[in-house]
Amino acid sequence: MTNTMKAVVLQEQGKITVDDVERPGAPGPGEVKVGMHTVGICGSDVHYYTRGAIGDFVLREPMVLGHEGSGTVLEVGEGVTHLQPGDRVCMEPGIPNPRSRASREGMYNVDPDVRFWATPPVDGCLAEEVVHPAEYTYKLPEELSFAEGALIEPFAVGMQAATKARLKPGDIAAVVGCGTIGILTAIAALNGGASRVYISDVAAEKLALVQDIDGIVTVDASREDLGERIRRDTDGWGPQAVFEASGSAGAYKSLWDLPAPGGVLVLVGMPTQEVPLNVVKIQAKELRIESIFRYANVYQKAIDLAAGPGVDLSRLVTGTFPVAESVAVFDRGAEGRPTDTKLQITFAG
Amino acid sequence: MTNTMKAVVLQEQGKITVDDVERPGAPGPGEVKVGMHTVGICGSDVHYYTRGAIGDFVLREPMVLGHEGSGTVLEVGEGVTHLQPGDRVCMEPGIPNPRSRASREGMYNVDPDVRFWATPPVDGCLAEEVVHPAEYTYKLPEELSFAEGALIEPFAVGMQAATKARLKPGDIAAVVGCGTIGILTAIAALNGGASRVYISDVAAEKLALVQDIDGIVTVDASREDLGERIRRDTDGWGPQAVFEASGSAGAYKSLWDLPAPGGVLVLVGMPTQEVPLNVVKIQAKELRIESIFRYANVYQKAIDLAAGPGVDLSRLVTGTFPVAESVAVFDRGAEGRPTDTKLQITFAG
Amino acid sequence: MTNTMKAVVLQEQGKITVDDVERPGAPGPGEVKVGMHTVGICGSDVHYYTRGAIGDFVLREPMVLGHEGSGTVLEVGEGVTHLQPGDRVCMEPGIPNPRSRASREGMYNVDPDVRFWATPPVDGCLAEEVVHPAEYTYKLPEELSFAEGALIEPFAVGMQAATKARLKPGDIAAVVGCGTIGILTAIAALNGGASRVYISDVAAEKLALVQDIDGIVTVDASREDLGERIRRDTDGWGPQAVFEASGSAGAYKSLWDLPAPGGVLVLVGMPTQEVPLNVVKIQAKELRIESIFRYANVYQKAIDLAAGPGVDLSRLVTGTFPVAESVAVFDRGAEGRPTDTKLQITFAG
Amino acid sequence: MTNTMKAVVLQEQGKITVDDVERPGAPGPGEVKVGMHTVGICGSDVHYYTRGAIGDFVLREPMVLGHEGSGTVLEVGEGVTHLQPGDRVCMEPGIPNPRSRASREGMYNVDPDVRFWATPPVDGCLAEEVVHPAEYTYKLPEELSFAEGALIEPFAVGMQAATKARLKPGDIAAVVGCGTIGILTAIAALNGGASRVYISDVAAEKLALVQDIDGIVTVDASREDLGERIRRDTDGWGPQAVFEASGSAGAYKSLWDLPAPGGVLVLVGMPTQEVPLNVVKIQAKELRIESIFRYANVYQKAIDLAAGPGVDLSRLVTGTFPVAESVAVFDRGAEGRPTDTKLQITFAG
Repeated sequence: MTNTMKAVVLQEQGKITVDDVERPGAPGPGEVKVGMHTVGICGSDVHYYTRGAIGDFVLREPMVLGHEGSGTVLEVGEGVTHLQPGDRVCMEPGIPNPRSRASREGMYNVDPDVRFWATPPVDGCLAEEVVHPAEYTYKLPEELSFAEGALIEPFAVGMQAATKARLKPGDIAAVVGCGTIGILTAIAALNGGASRVYISDVAAEKLALVQDIDGIVTVDASREDLGERIRRDTDGWGPQAVFEASGSAGAYKSLWDLPAPGGVLVLVGMPTQEVPLNVVKIQAKELRIESIFRYANVYQKAIDLAAGPGVDLSRLVTGTFPVAESVAVFDRGAEGRPTDTKLQITFAG
Repeated sequence: MTNTMKAVVLQEQGKITVDDVERPGAPGPGEVKVGMHTVGICGSDVHYYTRGAIGDFVLREPMVLGHEGSGTVLEVGEGVTHLQPGDRVCMEPGIPNPRSRASREGMYNVDPDVRFWATPPVDGCLAEEVVHPAEYTYKLPEELSFAEGALIEPFAVGMQAATKARLKPGDIAAVVGCGTIGILTAIAALNGGASRVYISDVAAEKLALVQDIDGIVTVDASREDLGERIRRDTDGWGPQAVFEASGSAGAYKSLWDLPAPGGVLVLVGMPTQEVPLNVVKIQAKELRIESIFRYANVYQKAIDLAAGPGVDLSRLVTGTFPVAESVAVFDRGAEGRPTDTKLQITFAG
Repeated sequence: MTNTMKAVVLQEQGKITVDDVERPGAPGPGEVKVGMHTVGICGSDVHYYTRGAIGDFVLREPMVLGHEGSGTVLEVGEGVTHLQPGDRVCMEPGIPNPRSRASREGMYNVDPDVRFWATPPVDGCLAEEVVHPAEYTYKLPEELSFAEGALIEPFAVGMQAATKARLKPGDIAAVVGCGTIGILTAIAALNGGASRVYISDVAAEKLALVQDIDGIVTVDASREDLGERIRRDTDGWGPQAVFEASGSAGAYKSLWDLPAPGGVLVLVGMPTQEVPLNVVKIQAKELRIESIFRYANVYQKAIDLAAGPGVDLSRLVTGTFPVAESVAVFDRGAEGRPTDTKLQITFAG
Repeated sequence: MTNTMKAVVLQEQGKITVDDVERPGAPGPGEVKVGMHTVGICGSDVHYYTRGAIGDFVLREPMVLGHEGSGTVLEVGEGVTHLQPGDRVCMEPGIPNPRSRASREGMYNVDPDVRFWATPPVDGCLAEEVVHPAEYTYKLPEELSFAEGALIEPFAVGMQAATKARLKPGDIAAVVGCGTIGILTAIAALNGGASRVYISDVAAEKLALVQDIDGIVTVDASREDLGERIRRDTDGWGPQAVFEASGSAGAYKSLWDLPAPGGVLVLVGMPTQEVPLNVVKIQAKELRIESIFRYANVYQKAIDLAAGPGVDLSRLVTGTFPVAESVAVFDRGAEGRPTDTKLQITFAG
């Protein structure tokens, strides 16, 4: 085996290469080495490609892209017991300082020292091989394909949202925005306890992607008011949980009217500017607002739920491409076609 | 219409008649009159029949049996707006004092003044017609049959259990005891957020009733230890939520070993004597124990979940019988056949 | 006894009279008649006086003012067992429909049918006598004076806020805004579990009112940044709970920076316009936001805490005036002197 | 400085020596070296002395005793920023594996790999110097003495109990058993949100230790029934939270009758055998039962609360003794005098 391997490298803003980079060494204690199989392209990968930065995170030197990955364990380091070579796995891409106060309190996702794949200057997983901490590497059950394994990462975002909502069994939920994260949040809420989930968007072609899922009700926001629709279906009460997954400032205008009395709003989307908050409307129904930052302690549950009867993550895959075509895949991602949910790159075959 | 109607009356311990009783008058303000269609037989109905009492509740005069009912609205009283004649409905059988402290705090089920159908001296709903408060009468969606409507009551017990567990999306759950309530608790947990639910019993024929449900894993307790099985499937961690639904004192021996660290045990079954509590074992994993008493604020959610994609309550119905055969149905109920989950009596046809 | 009694009546915007009005009749079942002793003046009373309306609630005919009251039971109606004539009491001023869905779920405060004292067209309690439901009438322990009894109402607002925060024992809290509600929220938080409470305001004379309370730390916002101060005192972590009690839109600029990671913001103040919400800042620390609308199920707890070792509500009373001086009292209230926390009117002696 | 130091060593069951042991080396990265000032004697220390074992933990070789310690930082290792030499500190005695699943979920106390001071074979802190992880070493505010700093450890047990109860501001609480842990639990509950705390014991001399604390109500269980007393004081409702801190199997007979409807029982004491659980009584009020195992994430809050206005931990100190008298102190501890709450050993002076 040579000392180099193929990786998809963002050289600078606007320039991606499929390059030979140094192959990682043997896994250290508590680590595993994984041969990558499939990696999904996320909006943040595309954003670094087109803009070179997200907020304070600025690309200053070449960086391997990708943080939604699955593969096969090649080698395990000392002290690793729950994995062995040959295991099919997916990986949680953020590694916190386990001794920080946030980590000790069970919120390792908000530890400011988290090192997260493909967030400058940390290399991502769009490479033939990665070395990763074993405790953030999860065995895939046989029910899940590599493609589905690479979707656990964005699904975990939806899982975090559904968890924060503190859904009670049978609650009615609503999701604003039918993009990839909106769909995955709807699936997490539906399988995480809700009896049915309304999802709205102004783009009918996005709603078409989920309208055959039993338990999901699509609402074309260009034709029908989401709040009125749900209140009509629920004797005027409304949904106990509402997930804002559009990230659009415009969605906030009617957001406060949506939840049932005592209900919750979970802020999943990330508007780029400040949005207007109507305090008096929130108070009149004593609403709760929750927010999420990536996820913590939901990966195994996301895998278990994805392997269960109600979830089929593979429907999210719009297309799968060999690594050699990576540049074209990123260019297509940058187009932002409405019906492209998830583009994936594979190192296999 | 005559002033009398058919009803199934427990005259005294051991003696049931299908009798003519006084037909109820018009519904008062906030009430509805319902023509009953289907009524399920519960273990408590059978217990009053065979023993004449449950705890402090002693039959002292003839009482109409039945509290699991569905039917059609015949007439609505003043001020009732969410129902109209012809609506198919099911009814929550306990009516609390809405001004009691327990009710004001949202726990109307533990109000000591609750009047509950077929709990002496309150008549039940095994009659052609009943008058009931509108706010405890729920419209059935078209997805649910009358038979399923009459199963909402025991399903609400499982829903209360799943709600008290505070399941997080994707949690692993386990149910001890595969009787009617155990099965309904497993269904509530699975659709209320769990990724999969293990259910155990020593009677293989009971497990056979649910082994085809996707997401439910049956464990024959006469052959395999439930705890060992789940720990093996979960890298030694165990289930986050365990429901005790057998009511058997023997089940408590190994109960404390089942949950994962920080997990919850929900006590659903009602052992007739005190059971041994191992405090040190509970403390070592900082377990939480929850208990339920019937249900509160879950009926609408039970209906919504029952109408959803993952639940088919009709599978619980072992047999449906005309009201004229009621005595035979109760005698069969008293036999306690292991594969009899739910026997129902119908006034229709 | 004559058929009329003295009451403080808002005849129209800007015109208050101390008038003879009809004396209430005997209490009905479940009701009590109370002879009023002390009534506090709230900002909302003053607002109706100066503006004639609050939001959708518009004064259209003369209305008795006042909703913060204490007095003595004169007579009890049928079925009232926990009170008897001579009991000193205070009253919860909102009466919900106990059979509404919100009430059944334990959130009677958000029931849209609540009838609330001195909210048009409902008469308030600034009258010699009132008739009130017994379950919303609370016995005062001997530790509490009538003046303190009349302060339970605004204290209950602070209690609702502290309850919604879900404080853990020893949490650090912060209150933005040192008006009457800010002070009462700080006292509720301090005695409701916090180890210490920072309170900030730009008006030094308001801070002076509380700076001698052990456990409360005053921060003059015109000289020192509240967030920097608390982070310096807490190794950079920040307060677990922050209460916005200023109602000032300006306060929202730095609000999102205040809480510790995973902390909570409770919105107590009511800004008259929309305020800017910084979603990304909230997400970065996964903050939770709670809101309150009056209170539910906290009155007895407010009384118990007020009677306990750490609370002295009497310090909030700026002045007490005979009912004959009511017009002058309201005029002073309308001035909004910064050091006027609570003005009270008494019917006694 | 010599290479040896004084330490209190349990040589074998029944034999303690004050001995010269090896002085620890310099602190490694993330560690601090602390010069011990005061160490409290806990029942578990005495138990190892008199019995040589607690459950599965058996003394097999000499071990330094003590886990309730305070002192002064002598030296800090690389990367330690929040502490410096000269800081007065106390230490959390259990060190978990921060990468275990329990730790990642925020429950590091139930990590089976925790290494806990003076739990065989881990040496304790009854020595002149110890080296400890900086993140489990807490700076003492000037309000707290070394004696109080050494009491933070048992106070943290009470804090964990009060935290698990999820007290709401103003709740009524009750503690069964007025030993050291019972008293500290009562203080934690009172300052952690309760309006008043009842504490009961059959030993009047124990109750005398706390009867002057404002907000604590003592109940002599040999003369008065705790449940009847609280129900009489609360209109029949009862306490929202009950803490079992006696560890006595006998206390469990009436335990289930104590809490209010929907209330919580926190199991703090550790009965040596199984106790009887009355499931039906628990269900009738839908009680919740919580348990604790040491504590997690409460140390800083315990310090903050102990430094606050309502807590005076120093009243718990029965006597302070020089290290040379350690054997006598342990012998006195083994006597179990009812009025001995906390005996402490000091290395100072």
